[in-house]
Amino acid sequence: MVILIKNEATDDQIRYLSDWLTGQGFGLHFSKGEEATILGLVGDTSRLDIDLVRALDIVEDVKRIQEPYKNANRKFHPLDTVIDIAGRKIGGGHFLTIAGPCSVETEEQICEVARRVKASGADMLRGGAFKPRTSPYAFQGLREEGLRLLSVAKKETGLPIVTEIMDISQLPNFEDVDVIQVGARNMQNFELLKELGMLRKPILLKRGLMATFEELLMSAEYIMAGGNEQVILCERGIRGFETYTRNVLDLCAVPVLKKLSHLPVIIDPSHSTGRADLVAPMSLAAAAAGADGLIIEVHNNPAKALCDGKQSLTPDAFDRLKRQIDQVLDLTRSFSA
Amino acid sequence: MVILIKNEATDDQIRYLSDWLTGQGFGLHFSKGEEATILGLVGDTSRLDIDLVRALDIVEDVKRIQEPYKNANRKFHPLDTVIDIAGRKIGGGHFLTIAGPCSVETEEQICEVARRVKASGADMLRGGAFKPRTSPYAFQGLREEGLRLLSVAKKETGLPIVTEIMDISQLPNFEDVDVIQVGARNMQNFELLKELGMLRKPILLKRGLMATFEELLMSAEYIMAGGNEQVILCERGIRGFETYTRNVLDLCAVPVLKKLSHLPVIIDPSHSTGRADLVAPMSLAAAAAGADGLIIEVHNNPAKALCDGKQSLTPDAFDRLKRQIDQVLDLTRSFSA
Amino acid sequence: MVILIKNEATDDQIRYLSDWLTGQGFGLHFSKGEEATILGLVGDTSRLDIDLVRALDIVEDVKRIQEPYKNANRKFHPLDTVIDIAGRKIGGGHFLTIAGPCSVETEEQICEVARRVKASGADMLRGGAFKPRTSPYAFQGLREEGLRLLSVAKKETGLPIVTEIMDISQLPNFEDVDVIQVGARNMQNFELLKELGMLRKPILLKRGLMATFEELLMSAEYIMAGGNEQVILCERGIRGFETYTRNVLDLCAVPVLKKLSHLPVIIDPSHSTGRADLVAPMSLAAAAAGADGLIIEVHNNPAKALCDGKQSLTPDAFDRLKRQIDQVLDLTRSFSA
Amino acid sequence: MVILIKNEATDDQIRYLSDWLTGQGFGLHFSKGEEATILGLVGDTSRLDIDLVRALDIVEDVKRIQEPYKNANRKFHPLDTVIDIAGRKIGGGHFLTIAGPCSVETEEQICEVARRVKASGADMLRGGAFKPRTSPYAFQGLREEGLRLLSVAKKETGLPIVTEIMDISQLPNFEDVDVIQVGARNMQNFELLKELGMLRKPILLKRGLMATFEELLMSAEYIMAGGNEQVILCERGIRGFETYTRNVLDLCAVPVLKKLSHLPVIIDPSHSTGRADLVAPMSLAAAAAGADGLIIEVHNNPAKALCDGKQSLTPDAFDRLKRQIDQVLDLTRSFSA
Repeated sequence: MVILIKNEATDDQIRYLSDWLTGQGFGLHFSKGEEATILGLVGDTSRLDIDLVRALDIVEDVKRIQEPYKNANRKFHPLDTVIDIAGRKIGGGHFLTIAGPCSVETEEQICEVARRVKASGADMLRGGAFKPRTSPYAFQGLREEGLRLLSVAKKETGLPIVTEIMDISQLPNFEDVDVIQVGARNMQNFELLKELGMLRKPILLKRGLMATFEELLMSAEYIMAGGNEQVILCERGIRGFETYTRNVLDLCAVPVLKKLSHLPVIIDPSHSTGRADLVAPMSLAAAAAGADGLIIEVHNNPAKALCDGKQSLTPDAFDRLKRQIDQVLDLTRSFSA
Repeated sequence: MVILIKNEATDDQIRYLSDWLTGQGFGLHFSKGEEATILGLVGDTSRLDIDLVRALDIVEDVKRIQEPYKNANRKFHPLDTVIDIAGRKIGGGHFLTIAGPCSVETEEQICEVARRVKASGADMLRGGAFKPRTSPYAFQGLREEGLRLLSVAKKETGLPIVTEIMDISQLPNFEDVDVIQVGARNMQNFELLKELGMLRKPILLKRGLMATFEELLMSAEYIMAGGNEQVILCERGIRGFETYTRNVLDLCAVPVLKKLSHLPVIIDPSHSTGRADLVAPMSLAAAAAGADGLIIEVHNNPAKALCDGKQSLTPDAFDRLKRQIDQVLDLTRSFSA
Repeated sequence: MVILIKNEATDDQIRYLSDWLTGQGFGLHFSKGEEATILGLVGDTSRLDIDLVRALDIVEDVKRIQEPYKNANRKFHPLDTVIDIAGRKIGGGHFLTIAGPCSVETEEQICEVARRVKASGADMLRGGAFKPRTSPYAFQGLREEGLRLLSVAKKETGLPIVTEIMDISQLPNFEDVDVIQVGARNMQNFELLKELGMLRKPILLKRGLMATFEELLMSAEYIMAGGNEQVILCERGIRGFETYTRNVLDLCAVPVLKKLSHLPVIIDPSHSTGRADLVAPMSLAAAAAGADGLIIEVHNNPAKALCDGKQSLTPDAFDRLKRQIDQVLDLTRSFSA
Repeated sequence: MVILIKNEATDDQIRYLSDWLTGQGFGLHFSKGEEATILGLVGDTSRLDIDLVRALDIVEDVKRIQEPYKNANRKFHPLDTVIDIAGRKIGGGHFLTIAGPCSVETEEQICEVARRVKASGADMLRGGAFKPRTSPYAFQGLREEGLRLLSVAKKETGLPIVTEIMDISQLPNFEDVDVIQVGARNMQNFELLKELGMLRKPILLKRGLMATFEELLMSAEYIMAGGNEQVILCERGIRGFETYTRNVLDLCAVPVLKKLSHLPVIIDPSHSTGRADLVAPMSLAAAAAGADGLIIEVHNNPAKALCDGKQSLTPDAFDRLKRQIDQVLDLTRSFSA
């Protein structure tokens, strides 16, 4: 870490700062320039509170050279993390396709979708039981009953399941859940992250609407610091000024996160765009960009003409898309070979 | 609510939609134009899931005319809500000044700051016990011990206290806390909001970095739907592209939120700007714009030359500012008189 | 167009508004609901000033059903526009790869890069002569001399050239330029757009850092309204809060713009990301998402170890990438076949 | 300027970089740390292309310590710039109130508004002649005729006038215009800025919707580098995700820009918010925050009930507001006294 100290800092102030830093076990080396004094820190600066240092009056700026995350950092773990989910793998060249409805509605619905997406080659089933809704008056999900129905679909199809947790207190109900999802709104619910760090179960961590890459990795670090190293990162769109799409899918997240971290990175083309007609092109793009997986909304309600919503694919559309994704993966794997 | 239906919708689809809506108790009236069919809904549409309707293939757009929040809505509660906090009032012309350090550090620190800001006329003491930190390795606050020290400062000075909660499980420790703060990162932690709705204690709800005004009001609605009507809204900056200030203080929040809602609105000039030199001008601006209060970071560490941080005011600077704020309030009250 | 009129509007106000609208030749039909009166407009509303209508006190909201652009609108021109650039085609299944250095520096440099990218299969040469620079003290490009060097490279390699114009007054120098580029900062330089509409030469129109899709299409409409229908749209990143990449590459621009418009859409992975290591994954993603072309920075300076900049590819890296792009295109073309 | 060089840089690369920098006349001093080599530059770095340096492979980061603007920089010009506009002053404690309609429509309209705002104490008249419109089909302003009508109003009332230029070619028509406005969309139209730098007439430079403070100051620097030091900076809202207001008024611009620069700073509460009901609170807030002026839309059309638009004040509302602004200014001047 490099600290730029303003020229107007007094010797007393600089001495005070150095004492405080050496007191924390850092080695220091100084370099006095014309415009600023430069203070280099030697030691593990991930423990140091950079905001506190930056907030000091005599400090012009602070520049980390080491990233503040260690467990999630590719520098210290050059090899891709491979996570095993009931026999399916993600990371290190293994691609995972997750599919399923936005919300679990009925046993018929979730089982039918599960059968259809399994037949198309999906590796895993998604479905919301606890639903984060902007309005307290909106449907909040089937909750515990939704988890039970997911288990039924899992038993019937053999597909492992992923679903979202919204509060620590719901954890006891998640035993049969294979991957626990932390939604974008809870990406910085640090108490929840710490609790999930105690588990030895994969966590699907979604990027918050306003979160930087580093903030996402720091949230992964919260989980990993507790000993749970099975974190899957998920880009699901950031908030921008455009209103045509629901959010802005920041596809650069794939190569950037994979460069900074060894953790697998997946894309959610359904929630990020909010439009079914964008799911296919963005899924193919994600595969071509090197993503480790996709999580795609698929809804099945053939009896109801209305229910082919703007965001969800039909099972047929998913089936076509899945085959195209596989071909793109075959091709791009040949590039790195 | 007005639903625009695409011209390509079939009669069957439209009939299906109308049946679904009338089945939920809404009255409908149709108007067929050249470009679209317009469907007007009569009834309490706050229960209706607007995203679901918007997601339908045959729907061009949905336009709410009634806002989706009721308890927080000024239309149904034209008079300002006035909240009483241990004898201090906020709202309806009552201005509340909250001051204190970012984190509670020691008994000496919190009591000294409490004494100083009380002497300057602050109405209430702030101080973080549970600290939401981006990094798991950063200081996470004194937690329960921090709450205890706040109680000591409260007893000594008589100032009521506000501090942040991060998880439902911490609630039992908050008995002596006069106002419970929900931080920006937890603005859409809906399970927490529901729990706070069960209390009969004022909640200070901070706007999330990515939240629209409507989303903030919907989060207030979560609390109010549970019966707790004592919600104070707080603008503390939204995330933008500028890096000079920490966030973008959206001061329009004051007149906008006060127009849409009867709840009191306060400004946090310290966290939003992240720079002590901007706290005074933005505090005066907030007062001139009609805010109901301010929450200002004040730190006291006369022995340490370093600790006059970029974000916190010294007690002396706060003292000067408090007198200027009072003069601005005197003047602007004369405008509305 | 549908206008929602507030319930508090008086009959006089509504009559005044209707008279004003019928006076402009629109047919009207009214529908009075409980919460609002709905006014449907029949006629060509692209001439109507929607902001003016929306600004009226009695208007709750205005909803366009027809898009405000006509020439650029796919609804009125269902077939892809195909643009011919000195024998190379773009649009309608034709993919165009543009490559070259950020700035034209010397005759040796531009000719060498031109030869190399041509050998790799590039269709066209790019290179900046007039450079928009944030600082007045930074290198502003070789200007007229830069255009001359581009012509030399064109003559030598046969590659058509594209370069940026910054002001109408520079136009006489652009005779030998095959495609004139309008940079992101000038996307709403309407006087310039009008002038370019008088030409019969392809225009490469870059999306502004803050521009919505509709605003980009309206700027294309400025050019097309003058009779110049050869507009190529280019996504080059929008401004966001992330600082790791220079901008946020909004790859959804490809399917969205191609749905809304018949104009070809290309991606600039170099300027949007600002990092050479992201150019390859984002180029492959763009091809997979259905883009009609790419504009890629390639720099050649083997003698200078420094000059392998963060944003530009070396000719060798471009060569590898070009072959991968071609394979992705072969595959994705088989999907639509 | 401080350049952080990666540890993996070879001695050859570092030598190449140092030679290149010393060749440009900079003094260098090196400091080799554990994680990075730090290179301090001595000399006038405003000429140096920071993006070029940052783009080098061996460079980890570049940190300017001196701002890249000199003429606009308060460090080199500690005293406030005071600009004289036909006898009215702005800056250095002088507050300037500009008022008038969005567009010049007729001689009656502009003269009537001019008379009314003058009677209320406005210092200057605004009114658009050349109008930047998103749509080519929208009213583009009265153009030259609009300028003529502004001159009539100026002659009649004695109020100096400000109006927007959109292209260099329009400049000959601006002789009678007292202050030339550069709109947000043209903030980085560098050719135009250079041309305006040749004049000796005040320029009102509006911040672009996506421009940082530094970018705004660099655009001012373009004008000042040509010798025209009379630049007035104007905050008029930045683009954000909120749709209730048209833009996000970043009121921190006032203290920030006044700290970084000696140039006067004004606020446009009309365009930034897009809502007349927000103009008064934001105007008072701007005055309290230390702005040097305001530019407010005032429209007069008593015969037409419709024309009390959402963004413009009536002359009566402006009159009330003007008196309140004056009282806030009286008060806040007493603070600094």
